[in-house]
Amino acid sequence: MSRKIRLGAFLPGGGQHVAAWRHPDAPSDGATNIGFHIRLAQTAEKGLFDAYFLADGLSVGFSGGREGGSAKAAGFEPVTLFAALSAHTSHLGFIATASTTYEEPYQLARKFASLDLISGGRAAWNVVTSTGDETAQNFNRDEQLPHAERYRRAREHVDVVRQLWDSWEDDAFIRDKATGEFFGRDRVHEIHYKGEFFQVKGPLNAPRPPQGHPVVVQAGASEDGRDLAAETAEVIFAAHQTLAKAQEFYRDIKARVAAKGRNPAEVLIMPGVAPFVGRTQEEAQAKYDRLTSLILPEEGLALLNGLAGGTLDLKGYPLDGPLPAQDTTEGNKSRQILIREIADRHGFTIRQLYQYVATARGHLTLIGTPETIVDTLQEWFENEAADGFNILPPWLPAGLDDFVQLIVPELQRRGLFREQYEGRTLRENLGLSRPVNPWTEARAQLAAE
Amino acid sequence: MSRKIRLGAFLPGGGQHVAAWRHPDAPSDGATNIGFHIRLAQTAEKGLFDAYFLADGLSVGFSGGREGGSAKAAGFEPVTLFAALSAHTSHLGFIATASTTYEEPYQLARKFASLDLISGGRAAWNVVTSTGDETAQNFNRDEQLPHAERYRRAREHVDVVRQLWDSWEDDAFIRDKATGEFFGRDRVHEIHYKGEFFQVKGPLNAPRPPQGHPVVVQAGASEDGRDLAAETAEVIFAAHQTLAKAQEFYRDIKARVAAKGRNPAEVLIMPGVAPFVGRTQEEAQAKYDRLTSLILPEEGLALLNGLAGGTLDLKGYPLDGPLPAQDTTEGNKSRQILIREIADRHGFTIRQLYQYVATARGHLTLIGTPETIVDTLQEWFENEAADGFNILPPWLPAGLDDFVQLIVPELQRRGLFREQYEGRTLRENLGLSRPVNPWTEARAQLAAE
Repeated sequence: MSRKIRLGAFLPGGGQHVAAWRHPDAPSDGATNIGFHIRLAQTAEKGLFDAYFLADGLSVGFSGGREGGSAKAAGFEPVTLFAALSAHTSHLGFIATASTTYEEPYQLARKFASLDLISGGRAAWNVVTSTGDETAQNFNRDEQLPHAERYRRAREHVDVVRQLWDSWEDDAFIRDKATGEFFGRDRVHEIHYKGEFFQVKGPLNAPRPPQGHPVVVQAGASEDGRDLAAETAEVIFAAHQTLAKAQEFYRDIKARVAAKGRNPAEVLIMPGVAPFVGRTQEEAQAKYDRLTSLILPEEGLALLNGLAGGTLDLKGYPLDGPLPAQDTTEGNKSRQILIREIADRHGFTIRQLYQYVATARGHLTLIGTPETIVDTLQEWFENEAADGFNILPPWLPAGLDDFVQLIVPELQRRGLFREQYEGRTLRENLGLSRPVNPWTEARAQLAAE
Repeated sequence: MSRKIRLGAFLPGGGQHVAAWRHPDAPSDGATNIGFHIRLAQTAEKGLFDAYFLADGLSVGFSGGREGGSAKAAGFEPVTLFAALSAHTSHLGFIATASTTYEEPYQLARKFASLDLISGGRAAWNVVTSTGDETAQNFNRDEQLPHAERYRRAREHVDVVRQLWDSWEDDAFIRDKATGEFFGRDRVHEIHYKGEFFQVKGPLNAPRPPQGHPVVVQAGASEDGRDLAAETAEVIFAAHQTLAKAQEFYRDIKARVAAKGRNPAEVLIMPGVAPFVGRTQEEAQAKYDRLTSLILPEEGLALLNGLAGGTLDLKGYPLDGPLPAQDTTEGNKSRQILIREIADRHGFTIRQLYQYVATARGHLTLIGTPETIVDTLQEWFENEAADGFNILPPWLPAGLDDFVQLIVPELQRRGLFREQYEGRTLRENLGLSRPVNPWTEARAQLAAE
């Protein structure tokens, strides 16, 4: 079987683009409309996407200055939503974001095990450390934990969660009505975890998930983030503007994965892509122009400032002039630098910059016909830049409908994408192996000696 | 409209009775079988139950000595499960248990708001403080918090959660595509909570739930528990063996509710009932005998010990002899005393005691025809002992099917129970009013002055 492109669909009900909800074809209440989310999930499944992905934060996100009315301020808790969506689908995977900083491993392991059971093996966990003081202030703190501490905690958290998922062996449940033996006491294990941050006895009060472990997803770009991803992740989301940058990241991550003693083929790298597709280039460009024209200037500036971690206040500068030089010594520098690079590369004015960034927030925006868009996807896929893509339809539902109707057939025509789902679980569809239970493995080794 | 009986259905997939999974008609994997839970939810809705209730703990529960194979060791996280079940039902409410000791208010408020949105206003929160060192050891502690501290924390937790549910006013979302105004900034509020246990800034990143607040449920029998229930609960589950005890509790709670300045009619008291129903008394008794014969003696003894908080070790005593006198100075005395009262009242041997307790764990067991069972329910309902009942079918699905087919029609014939759902939300069906948003109320008062 030839290697195939994997596809995630990033489908926040309110749309990815900051002005998505203002589009005439979009429901303005999409962010909190369950019926709309069901329709999106069913469309993604029709398009044979591997998974529906939801980012998530644990605050309203006012601190970036978007108080005027961000459509993303309020939404569903992802695992709760996905449990409901799993009832309306049969093959689509669900990648839910959950925080290692503000959730306890026991509860997190349990809810993902539950989602995996409920969906028949379609759950994935996008591991995030939840940045920002605003979030910390919803969880008994004044300020967030330092970056390095958040990542140490994340590493330990994932470790605890995985041990909990393994605390019951796959064959633990006997359920013999005649003898009354419900499970084998030698097939369930206390984990007695004691680390820097967590002390967890176990076992988990849920069986081992159908997938062994729900798929673990990560999206760190910092040094700590790359290391954590190389150690723990099976799918890695990334944001790149150019093939060269994507290749550099791809090779760096695969090398780190190998250095950790893991198989690089078992770690899928999926850059984000926001496509505007038309039957002609003009039609595609018109879709882009239509959506970008809906961005309110104050919202565009707030978006840039928010993405730069509050370090890029552009109020008062001419919108149709260049980005002014500013101090980059504080805050989240790597993100401000990414934004400045985009402006420099394209020679953007402030307005053009926020229009461009609003679409995909650092991900690649592609405006074109099915052929030209698939040309780019194929180029990245075949040249060590991507194992697949996380598709960010700029507005919904039309951006997703367009992808399914126009781009998926072109991918299939070139033999780059599946004609039907390969399996029933997300792991089977992604081509990822099912984790071996270490307790079971240890027993098998003992028996072989 | 005359007062009607409210009905909750306690439907752990593995059955209520300790031997339920061994019954020939029960699926042995019911506890973790999503298809079986869907069938139960649909049957409960067909029977016009107000709500599906799930208890929950945050450990496997081995400490009581039931290591031989309790069917309750592993199950679904309730909110995740109910989100899926809401997709298969349209009117049934969902009462999910969640812990004030081990969950953060922000996340808890969000997941229940999400479930309420997803289900169209059918969510309820059963507030528990999660007893036991075994649970504490899954959450970074060696021992559980002292009883009084758990209850102080619970009171504060419920307060934070309610304030978060109110942090967006009902009319906060404007979603004006023309102006770009998504919400009214004066309709969303930071709560700046600072208490003994929690410091939470808010607002919640979810809209106000359709019900205003999901219904708040409680089941405390201790002094602290009764006070917390009187202060915060809208539905109270209880466990009583006699009409007199139920009346005493009912009057005590209603008086406490009134003393807190709340309307006693807005607090529904629902004792638990485990019914064995047959077309004849003999048929009902045969069902009881059949199920109790499936209890393994060591499991029966472990059950008694577990219910008594580990203070009642009966190993080695003759099963067909009386309960020996034992020290009651340590552990959970109130629960051991309840168990001893049952033995004394009925003159039970040890075997008879665990058989009886296994069925309903302190709740009322009724064995009879539809007429005799409804006689008792009616007597309690009409004599200040109950506003409704939490039905605990001893084994599933037959115990639930029996109730829907045999008892519901008898309740309806006597005009004691609905012929169809009164509304779409759980509050509407329970006859509970929708909480006023205090911010909205304050503005209305200001405007009126």
